[in-house]
Amino acid sequence: MAKDKKVEQITDMEVDFAQWYTDICRKAELVEYASVKGFTILRPYGYAIWENMQRIMDGEFKKTGHVNVAMPVLIPESLLKKEGELVNGFAPEVAWVTMGGSEQLEERLAFRPTSETMFCDHWSRVLHSYRELPMLYNQWCSVIRWEKTTRPFLRSREFWWQEGHTIHETAEEAKAETEQQLNTYADFFEKVLAIPVVRGRKTDKEKFAGAEATYTVECMMKDHKALQGATSHYFGDKFSRAYDVTFTGRDNKLQYPFQTSWGSTTRMIGAVIMAHGDNNGLVLPPPIAPIQVIVLPVAMHKPGVLEAADALRERMEKAGLRVKLDDSDNSMGWKCAQYEMKGVPLRVEIGPRDIEAGQCVLVRRNDGEKTVVKLEELEEAAKAQLEAVQQGLFEKAKANMEEHTYVAQSVEEARELQERNGGFIKTMWCGDLACELKMKEQAGMSSRCMPLKQEKLGEVCACCGKPAKAMVYWGVAY
Amino acid sequence: MAKDKKVEQITDMEVDFAQWYTDICRKAELVEYASVKGFTILRPYGYAIWENMQRIMDGEFKKTGHVNVAMPVLIPESLLKKEGELVNGFAPEVAWVTMGGSEQLEERLAFRPTSETMFCDHWSRVLHSYRELPMLYNQWCSVIRWEKTTRPFLRSREFWWQEGHTIHETAEEAKAETEQQLNTYADFFEKVLAIPVVRGRKTDKEKFAGAEATYTVECMMKDHKALQGATSHYFGDKFSRAYDVTFTGRDNKLQYPFQTSWGSTTRMIGAVIMAHGDNNGLVLPPPIAPIQVIVLPVAMHKPGVLEAADALRERMEKAGLRVKLDDSDNSMGWKCAQYEMKGVPLRVEIGPRDIEAGQCVLVRRNDGEKTVVKLEELEEAAKAQLEAVQQGLFEKAKANMEEHTYVAQSVEEARELQERNGGFIKTMWCGDLACELKMKEQAGMSSRCMPLKQEKLGEVCACCGKPAKAMVYWGVAY
Repeated sequence: MAKDKKVEQITDMEVDFAQWYTDICRKAELVEYASVKGFTILRPYGYAIWENMQRIMDGEFKKTGHVNVAMPVLIPESLLKKEGELVNGFAPEVAWVTMGGSEQLEERLAFRPTSETMFCDHWSRVLHSYRELPMLYNQWCSVIRWEKTTRPFLRSREFWWQEGHTIHETAEEAKAETEQQLNTYADFFEKVLAIPVVRGRKTDKEKFAGAEATYTVECMMKDHKALQGATSHYFGDKFSRAYDVTFTGRDNKLQYPFQTSWGSTTRMIGAVIMAHGDNNGLVLPPPIAPIQVIVLPVAMHKPGVLEAADALRERMEKAGLRVKLDDSDNSMGWKCAQYEMKGVPLRVEIGPRDIEAGQCVLVRRNDGEKTVVKLEELEEAAKAQLEAVQQGLFEKAKANMEEHTYVAQSVEEARELQERNGGFIKTMWCGDLACELKMKEQAGMSSRCMPLKQEKLGEVCACCGKPAKAMVYWGVAY
Repeated sequence: MAKDKKVEQITDMEVDFAQWYTDICRKAELVEYASVKGFTILRPYGYAIWENMQRIMDGEFKKTGHVNVAMPVLIPESLLKKEGELVNGFAPEVAWVTMGGSEQLEERLAFRPTSETMFCDHWSRVLHSYRELPMLYNQWCSVIRWEKTTRPFLRSREFWWQEGHTIHETAEEAKAETEQQLNTYADFFEKVLAIPVVRGRKTDKEKFAGAEATYTVECMMKDHKALQGATSHYFGDKFSRAYDVTFTGRDNKLQYPFQTSWGSTTRMIGAVIMAHGDNNGLVLPPPIAPIQVIVLPVAMHKPGVLEAADALRERMEKAGLRVKLDDSDNSMGWKCAQYEMKGVPLRVEIGPRDIEAGQCVLVRRNDGEKTVVKLEELEEAAKAQLEAVQQGLFEKAKANMEEHTYVAQSVEEARELQERNGGFIKTMWCGDLACELKMKEQAGMSSRCMPLKQEKLGEVCACCGKPAKAMVYWGVAY
């Protein structure tokens, strides 16, 4: 019999949350560092999670009429510079290609940090009439932003994402698109990733470079820090004008279309780790789990056990589940620890006594709940247990967010609440940048968003006492 | 009623094949030039074809145990240089990143031209034991090769592809993988793209930089030129040694794994255009067609016509086909021309008289064959017609290839045959580079491959008269 591979321990999250996070990234074999500083490799198990996310999300985009395209990865500097705010926002983080083969390029080329400029340049050449609008485009690719400090999934110099870019005949249509895509993201987080979100609008300070308005879904991790989940931007016709994108309108006159963009990235894998993981490792929501059910034969060398276990695997696969049978020579203890580390939502155990009794045992990853199930009811029971995992994850994450959302009436109170509990601190705000900066300096928090569901917590700004314009969620963010 | 958009004419292929090709690329809205020289944009219709190719191929890869990963796009120069032949082969075509943000990088970074080096570097850090072998990896991404002259799909500075990379315990296993993947490509070309191929081995001159052996599927276009479809490489343990990839073997000693890589690219779209297209535009094989069936209502403003047409669309969609109903105000003539240009394999027409007679008309794109079908038999008939399109395309392409494959016994004869007919010229060959160069100089042809199915055309090399070692296919290639 082969010796067990070592099941490596991970740091407890209560001891060192950052180390716990990195340990899961490595020990669950999601990601590995590359030999280029700040770059990472998505390993097969991490990439399989990303593929599941992509497939589900891409399906949603297509349902609402979006189509995929591929734009060049390199953007001429002059093209990138046409819209001043965008380039100012991204210039410090751009990687530049300056040589092609042995020849020095006449103009340096930016590795795309985001592709608004390329889409606009393309549209300026292919758009003619209002009949061709809207154009609802998306692309799946990687981008580079030359960050100083990096962490797997959360901040790396190259990351994988989708970037949606659309143009519309009217401002109203573009605004509706921005909102629709925000809701698509919110639904994806809540229904697929089992992570509750706050939908809101970013302050001017926090919005996307060049956008007229940025909307966001914000979530809370297990350490009560905030994480920006995905964003949706409305640009008005600012880029259209800068890039000379025009069309002949219904009135037969040249017009500028109105534009949106929206993006979500592999950082969602980081969100899943920190929203659901525990001290035994990753905990995956079933819709994105590469393996939804692991079948473990107990005393598998006894006659009939392996066959029985394999029959269960086959039945569940036929029922549409992603199932794996581990018939390796590793011990039962090692296998349990291994698939817990990998976050497999459901474990099915079957041994000689179970076979005799016509049953098997289902164990949920998220709460360890065991259920004994009659063999003939397996498919239904497995699906019900996976549903229970999904529900359990969402409810626990929701309780975490609700329990760690606080009201403050002053910067000092906000600071104390954040120091004591972390979480979201909500206050009223006058709308001034100065107050936002004050909250950052004195309470260490950035504005996360102005929730779409506003509440009236009082009449005045918590920072300056002037009349309040909006309620803001503040937090310490990843 | 809106005025018809103009249906633009394309150049006849008999007049100017190259212009005909470019016309289809543009007029079928597959691809557009970008503002960066040598770079292209995959437009929605072109990308949808690529998505279908990806889905089918990715499914095949997974059936044989391959998993997807994502490697960094930038490779440090020192890493790229560890294997001399590879870097010598690709160095003249590499795009270099030399700046990150405002800082000059200490070491310049190559935009990946291919990723053998990154996979080896990763494996050198994660591989430990023979138990972890084989590692069967693949990635979908884009690469850059700084080509001097470019053509849409066939040769562009950035192109989209999959690159498979695997390591194995033994040379035999790696060789079997190389062969298996070649056959996967061959099946994909023949069964999915309806393009017959010659499977063969490249000569040393034509093989991949650093490979021990390169296998290829070669196809013939309608102008009788050759196109390399996809390639599969066996590396032995050369890269493992250069990058220090080792594992503990069954004998408890450190060993080097044996390696393969294999790739296919968006140039397959170019192959489809030139293998099946005609003077009315693109002709798509049904498995990769974004729209498999276009439903056109005749006299659609007559009562009941649009409803009847939409019912057909719905029924065929339910039967699993990709269907579109065009109920726009454009004329029937415009619509027919438009969907012919786009290569939609099957057209379904229904008008008032058809409704009365309980029938509709099916028209095949590839040969214009019309079939009148009883409404209740539509689904079955549509599937049969799509099957007939696929079969018809393959047979026509096969006849083209067979009719333009010739035997020559001398360089002079080879030159004459090529000049008169184009196509594949097969000769015996002694294996010497000098003779290969002579064929290039005097007959303008490169060796396409040494087919796996060898024939004995004679005893001696057609170039030098020395004893022959193999039969070679020669051609003028894209």
